[in-house]
Amino acid sequence: MRVVLADDYSVHAPSGFISRGNRAANPEVPERAAILRRAVEAGSHAVIAPKDFGLAPVQAVHAADYLEFLTTAWDKWSALPDHAPEILPNVHPGRNMDIHPTHIVGLAGHYQADTACPIGPGTWRGALASAQVALTAADAMWRDGKPTYALCRPPGHHAYGDQAGGFCFLNNSAIAAQHLRDQGAARVAILDVDVHHGNGTQGIFYRRDDVLTVSIHGDPHGYYPFFTGYADEIGAGPGRGANLNLPLPRGTGDAEYLETLDKAMAAIDAFGADALVIALGLDASEKDPLAFLGVTTEGFRAIGDRLGRGNRPTVLVQEGGYISDILGDNLAAVLAGFDAARG
Amino acid sequence: MRVVLADDYSVHAPSGFISRGNRAANPEVPERAAILRRAVEAGSHAVIAPKDFGLAPVQAVHAADYLEFLTTAWDKWSALPDHAPEILPNVHPGRNMDIHPTHIVGLAGHYQADTACPIGPGTWRGALASAQVALTAADAMWRDGKPTYALCRPPGHHAYGDQAGGFCFLNNSAIAAQHLRDQGAARVAILDVDVHHGNGTQGIFYRRDDVLTVSIHGDPHGYYPFFTGYADEIGAGPGRGANLNLPLPRGTGDAEYLETLDKAMAAIDAFGADALVIALGLDASEKDPLAFLGVTTEGFRAIGDRLGRGNRPTVLVQEGGYISDILGDNLAAVLAGFDAARG
Repeated sequence: MRVVLADDYSVHAPSGFISRGNRAANPEVPERAAILRRAVEAGSHAVIAPKDFGLAPVQAVHAADYLEFLTTAWDKWSALPDHAPEILPNVHPGRNMDIHPTHIVGLAGHYQADTACPIGPGTWRGALASAQVALTAADAMWRDGKPTYALCRPPGHHAYGDQAGGFCFLNNSAIAAQHLRDQGAARVAILDVDVHHGNGTQGIFYRRDDVLTVSIHGDPHGYYPFFTGYADEIGAGPGRGANLNLPLPRGTGDAEYLETLDKAMAAIDAFGADALVIALGLDASEKDPLAFLGVTTEGFRAIGDRLGRGNRPTVLVQEGGYISDILGDNLAAVLAGFDAARG
Repeated sequence: MRVVLADDYSVHAPSGFISRGNRAANPEVPERAAILRRAVEAGSHAVIAPKDFGLAPVQAVHAADYLEFLTTAWDKWSALPDHAPEILPNVHPGRNMDIHPTHIVGLAGHYQADTACPIGPGTWRGALASAQVALTAADAMWRDGKPTYALCRPPGHHAYGDQAGGFCFLNNSAIAAQHLRDQGAARVAILDVDVHHGNGTQGIFYRRDDVLTVSIHGDPHGYYPFFTGYADEIGAGPGRGANLNLPLPRGTGDAEYLETLDKAMAAIDAFGADALVIALGLDASEKDPLAFLGVTTEGFRAIGDRLGRGNRPTVLVQEGGYISDILGDNLAAVLAGFDAARG
């Protein structure tokens, strides 16, 4: 497996977030990337550095006003008296208030879907660097067909075209998929195996029939993002039928997970994808601190095997997965399973 | 001035809220009511106790599903591991996610517009008691025409028909206005002089032509609630022309405030209201801890005078106004100014 690693994963280093009414330590920390990096470097993978694709492929997925917010918000926030160390929203427009605000506190509510996507002074730079890692992997893979893993951080799959959420700012998997489309892949599939529903990715492509979005995740009846990820969300307009949600009950283990993955791969076969983006969260792990499912390290190897057998041009984009003593092992297992299947 | 006082203002006693990313002490505390009560009791006002009007007049303004949330949320929240002492939302449905959630964290995001309306074990009971105070005042005033002040706490004007916000849960002023309508007042006006835009009240009556909503408040370009309160919000459908927002710049003092109040009273005259509800915030005070405007205690006396000269059947419903050494003086000044004008 070819791997794209960034030089520096530390510029976006959120200290906290708000969950269930409490300020808590943010689990989406630079150390995650260091652990994943060590796991990659312990394997026999060719490592390449990210190239700079500029802003155009980011603008192809994200709204101009949202990018304006991401690039200017910190200066406005840090000028406020009594501001927290990172931007967190506290007033949301919702269904009753849809007028575009001008004050940074209102802008935060408009552009941040939850209190789990704190924006600090390095967030834009870190998110843009993460998107370049995904773009480099997608671009290289499309040129020579070799499967490629992008060690992205921060993750991206909760970011909508115009909204941050759940530790995510730029949707790396969506940006990679759009780049593949723009390079000539007529039909692209995104398979999201992060334990949380890939709501941003779903939202970006919800009305499109050229990108199939499939997500396997913890049942949102009892798990973030609560509002989306239900099985009856199947796409809309021209995209009707091009979104597949496969929610799983709390505690689901390897066997049921792999059965569900088979359904997802069958849907991708039926769609006839020319390229496949795996939104590779590792937080379905039985030991993940945000635990909901119960996938073992052997399960991750089997997931990698299934993904490798898919035999399509494939790029793997790192999404979530938080620090446990087997986080690195789980990544190594997916990559090894994939490589073994490809021979 | 006749006054309605509740027995107990302490059942809803929020400890904190989240503002600008930080957890902070909540200024909407029972002590506010104690200060206002002492100010009332120092004057020569007839005091009456609240009656119980039941749920029907609350249901006339608030959606059934929202009331179900308010009455059941605490039990669900307190069963969560690691929950904060009060319910605060952390994931919001917004424009990208409009599916009705089932989990309490999702419900909180759906029904709480911001992180400033914490729900604790006594919130429903306190909010309902506050609504009964407003109903008692409106009902008594409509029966005999005597102006009546309702010492309501928690306040209400940020509560929409289906959403809490900004220290508010049930919209006491809207409930009072609707009760007046139901008792036979053909046209009712609500004049909101709280320093924050009366967004919930506006939302409840936005498409109706039988209730005029007027709000004088700090310019939402730079002040809560950020998303609403702009001058171009004039009502919609049958209610077009029956909403008037009069935003004022930071630091506005008595003279400009009173000029604006004259405009508001002229609009109420032109509407031909049969009854008037004053949403009486006292936080336009120069010394309010949430300071934005600069109204003096003499200014509040002049406000009371202007309201009294309006000479319509009038009920005054307490909204915001936070603890300073002149909070009680400001209430006393409004009531004295009103009484003097009525002779």
